[in-house]
Amino acid sequence: MADTLHLAADPVELTAALVDIPSVSGDEQRIADLVERSLREQTALEVVRSGNAVLARTNLGRPTRVVLAGHLDTVPVNDNLPSRLEDGVLHGCGTVDMKGGDAVMLHLAATTPEPRHDLTFVFYDCEEVEAVRNGLGRVEREMPEWLRGDLAIVCESSNAVVEAGCQGTIRVEVRARGVRAHTARGWMGVNAVHALGEVLRRLETYEPRRVDIDGCLYREGLQAVRVAGGVAGNVVPDEAVLTVNHRFAPDRSPEQAERHLRELFDGYEVTVTDVSAGALPGLAHPVTRELVEASGGAPVAKLGWTDVARFAALGMPAVNFGPGDPTLAHTKQENVPVNQVRRCVEVLRRFLG
Amino acid sequence: MADTLHLAADPVELTAALVDIPSVSGDEQRIADLVERSLREQTALEVVRSGNAVLARTNLGRPTRVVLAGHLDTVPVNDNLPSRLEDGVLHGCGTVDMKGGDAVMLHLAATTPEPRHDLTFVFYDCEEVEAVRNGLGRVEREMPEWLRGDLAIVCESSNAVVEAGCQGTIRVEVRARGVRAHTARGWMGVNAVHALGEVLRRLETYEPRRVDIDGCLYREGLQAVRVAGGVAGNVVPDEAVLTVNHRFAPDRSPEQAERHLRELFDGYEVTVTDVSAGALPGLAHPVTRELVEASGGAPVAKLGWTDVARFAALGMPAVNFGPGDPTLAHTKQENVPVNQVRRCVEVLRRFLG
Repeated sequence: MADTLHLAADPVELTAALVDIPSVSGDEQRIADLVERSLREQTALEVVRSGNAVLARTNLGRPTRVVLAGHLDTVPVNDNLPSRLEDGVLHGCGTVDMKGGDAVMLHLAATTPEPRHDLTFVFYDCEEVEAVRNGLGRVEREMPEWLRGDLAIVCESSNAVVEAGCQGTIRVEVRARGVRAHTARGWMGVNAVHALGEVLRRLETYEPRRVDIDGCLYREGLQAVRVAGGVAGNVVPDEAVLTVNHRFAPDRSPEQAERHLRELFDGYEVTVTDVSAGALPGLAHPVTRELVEASGGAPVAKLGWTDVARFAALGMPAVNFGPGDPTLAHTKQENVPVNQVRRCVEVLRRFLG
Repeated sequence: MADTLHLAADPVELTAALVDIPSVSGDEQRIADLVERSLREQTALEVVRSGNAVLARTNLGRPTRVVLAGHLDTVPVNDNLPSRLEDGVLHGCGTVDMKGGDAVMLHLAATTPEPRHDLTFVFYDCEEVEAVRNGLGRVEREMPEWLRGDLAIVCESSNAVVEAGCQGTIRVEVRARGVRAHTARGWMGVNAVHALGEVLRRLETYEPRRVDIDGCLYREGLQAVRVAGGVAGNVVPDEAVLTVNHRFAPDRSPEQAERHLRELFDGYEVTVTDVSAGALPGLAHPVTRELVEASGGAPVAKLGWTDVARFAALGMPAVNFGPGDPTLAHTKQENVPVNQVRRCVEVLRRFLG
């Protein structure tokens, strides 16, 4: 392995070089060391390290600052390394999620000497595991000033289209209770599993909202993700639990989403197991408008939840913009088309001047 | 511990003595040894041993033979030994399930020198565990001639009332399939858990039959006993399984019961996981009529499944008749009223002459 990466060279080769350094969550030291050394070669950048996160920024006194963020870790390798370039598509673990985006950021860090906005680059660890380990969360707690700016661009794959804001997500357990009995005398009991029929009926007839915000269409969703109940093969069950995941447009707060579910499942015990706020697209902000113009296309709504919401919670506009198809993330077949890597570099270079 | 039990003495004391010998399924050797030694003292009886089952019979040349059967094992002790007699009720593990019935059988074996019918006593092991280990099944395979007779009386608890025949039981898995998708784009998938809503609707509106056979009313039942499905908190599930237990009156064969469920759950995958035939009450048989008359009351339908069905499958009428409330079986609080133990002895002595 070279001592440093050639950041100024071809961003596709840079992507392949990053992909070929395995960096499953928790095992990012090698890639973080390499990224740190490579960034320290860029004398215009102030570089700091936090665990296996590496942060770098310009200090040019610009009136505005843009934060670009990407995680360095991947899901476990699935017999899909080293990388393989075939017909203009780079295959391998981490190509789309998200070393293509990391390469775009690193390349820009080395080749944008006079940006119109001051720039902060955030490469972080442990995005693919439980939220409490997320490196961006640690940076936010330990050095929050490094995340401040007028716009955050999370370079996770978005098909090289600006995806604005993100939807919130809330999971609840809907619990039905009954009375146990032997099935030979079932009428002496109350079947909690049968009682879930009514809950499923409400799910079936539910009409999810479609919400237009700043020209972005958010499609909400309400899906049962787990169902469990049962005591023994000859016992009327006295408890059954349906876990439901609701994705909600960012015009609603987590509290509003919870209230909505409690109304919908009225008559049942509802327990919130986890919730994450969405993020408004924030497209009215001038810096965001510049990015959208540079991308040459209308932004679309981000439906999944991403770390964009962490930046939104800091009060900044935040968008997703990165190469590759996000639905390939976490699959063995993940890949990134190289022309999208190049397109992201071009759009961001145009935006950053 | 005495070398033998005092079979001819008080059947309530005999019950307590049996209860105070722990005999959880698989650990019946001690109690089987004692029962065997005690029966061998009865010189009129032919005694054989099969594993931890003990069988004894008269060979008096009577034109008819009555088989009495009881299992020696119990469910695991639950801090409810030794036995405790309080206000005419004997408490402890195995009191109602079914050492009260075993004591009735043992007492009769020692105190009925001239029965009107030849008698066979079957004490067996491993009734409380998986059917393949059931000692009565082993006896049936290895020495089936020992189970032949004109009437079988299983002395499991029936509140000292003749319970005739038994219902059949069948368990099926009803499977719904869908298409996985990320919940952020739920409309790209098909939710298998939601599809169970229709199955639960059919269960809710199902009207179980009530069937009168020989004056016994059988109440059928159809109950979900387990539900399971789910992949991850953010994935639309592609499979969900509902396990349903159907208890069916003995006018239907297992094949008819299965066909009924396949019609009911038309449109879903239905897999039979286990089935046991019921047993017709067989009350038209003269020997059975004699027992009912001796018991002085109208027989009632047995709703649960018991080893009565094993005898019925051999082509014999078979009934349940034993002391205690069967709904207390397998509970920590299990107990047997001593007057029911005495009543069972009286009824059977009257019947056997």
